Amino acid sequence: MRFSPFKRIRAEISSDKHLKQAIKSILGYKPGNIFLYHLAFLHKSVAQMTLSGIKVNNERLEFLGDAILDAVTADYLFKTFPTKDEGFLTEMRSKIVSRATLNKLSQKMGIDQLIQLDTASSGAFRSSKGDAFEALIGAMYLDKGYDFTRKIILERIIKHYFNIDELVNQEVNFKSRIIEWSQREKKQVQFNICDEVGSGYRKQYVVELTVDGEAIARGQDYSIKGAEQNAAEKSWQKINGEIIDPDPKNG
Amino acid sequence: MRFSPFKRIRAEISSDKHLKQAIKSILGYKPGNIFLYHLAFLHKSVAQMTLSGIKVNNERLEFLGDAILDAVTADYLFKTFPTKDEGFLTEMRSKIVSRATLNKLSQKMGIDQLIQLDTASSGAFRSSKGDAFEALIGAMYLDKGYDFTRKIILERIIKHYFNIDELVNQEVNFKSRIIEWSQREKKQVQFNICDEVGSGYRKQYVVELTVDGEAIARGQDYSIKGAEQNAAEKSWQKINGEIIDPDPKNG
Repeated sequence: MRFSPFKRIRAEISSDKHLKQAIKSILGYKPGNIFLYHLAFLHKSVAQMTLSGIKVNNERLEFLGDAILDAVTADYLFKTFPTKDEGFLTEMRSKIVSRATLNKLSQKMGIDQLIQLDTASSGAFRSSKGDAFEALIGAMYLDKGYDFTRKIILERIIKHYFNIDELVNQEVNFKSRIIEWSQREKKQVQFNICDEVGSGYRKQYVVELTVDGEAIARGQDYSIKGAEQNAAEKSWQKINGEIIDPDPKNG
Repeated sequence: MRFSPFKRIRAEISSDKHLKQAIKSILGYKPGNIFLYHLAFLHKSVAQMTLSGIKVNNERLEFLGDAILDAVTADYLFKTFPTKDEGFLTEMRSKIVSRATLNKLSQKMGIDQLIQLDTASSGAFRSSKGDAFEALIGAMYLDKGYDFTRKIILERIIKHYFNIDELVNQEVNFKSRIIEWSQREKKQVQFNICDEVGSGYRKQYVVELTVDGEAIARGQDYSIKGAEQNAAEKSWQKINGEIIDPDPKNG
């Protein structure tokens, strides 16, 4: 140990102060339990802190924050779009909380600057920014409660960083729409390449989409990605056809 | 219209009273905005109510309730198991909020008795019980707020209907564990039958698990289900090997 215990304590206080100021400037409030926020930025590649003898990192907080963010976003969309169906709400949420969006958001807000990670260690750091963002939401929730967290997410994040009208008009990704739907409905979706048609530059892929093992629709395209989108779009129409009863008995 | 307007109003008041009593006896509190609860039990097969000219049913509330239930369960597990990692928390949550569990719970609690559905209409009613359960959570949340809903879920549902120790020891389903993990991490998981080995009664299936298109592991078994479980278990070990750095630099 290079530091004396006294110096070490001073260093920690200064680091607490720095983190508190950073949170204040990013989210506009003074954290209570600063330990939670330290933890939120502790990537698994570092993970030196121990709690009851167990190494800790931000993954537990990420699990919690992910759920809180989903709930707050669901509430926001439910109230913002009172006449839209749950398919629309699900899709909008997937646009807001996608890993790509959260990574970008983390960077825009300067959250990524606070992450402690060991860049020399191998492993996927690509999503560490979004992970830390979710962990921060988890820390805020434990520190300040749901209503406070909801207010901060709405006022400092959603209204500040998202253009909802733009999101509404963003091109529909039927594959992610289907995947989000399956998660909500707790069904298992698979995209299987089941055939190839033609050869050479005219080769097309045939992809079949199954839900819980049952084939729903097939799509065809020159790329696997295109065939998947095509299969997803057809499946989406079929699934929606089932959801919206075309011939209600009590009409 | 067979009823006079007067009789119709009286019938609605009586139905409000009945529903209020049912909620009181099932969940132990007096609902405020009873309209939300009527909506929670309105299956899409009926969907006669209109709001701003749009047919409504319980699907929007289900979307909201699903998210709130996930958040409350995440909070509960986070606090109940302070030393368990997020893989354990994710798996435990998937056991608690699985569609099968929610359907059963809905029945045990008598929620299924309140569902209004058109049994003559075609469509999948198998999950209508679990859907109504989630929609009820959504209604409670809008009516009474998060903290109240959290308290009711913990005290009247989780502590009452779940044996957490039993759930912990319940056999691990690696396939659902992988799927839950992929949902949390926003990755796309596929199980593809890539080969068949042997023939007749000795035929075995080879299933490959891919994450975002990248092959992780293969499993082999006499049944597709078994091969999938096998592939999922191997993949789980690999993924966990990455999460828990076996050779931390700062050891």
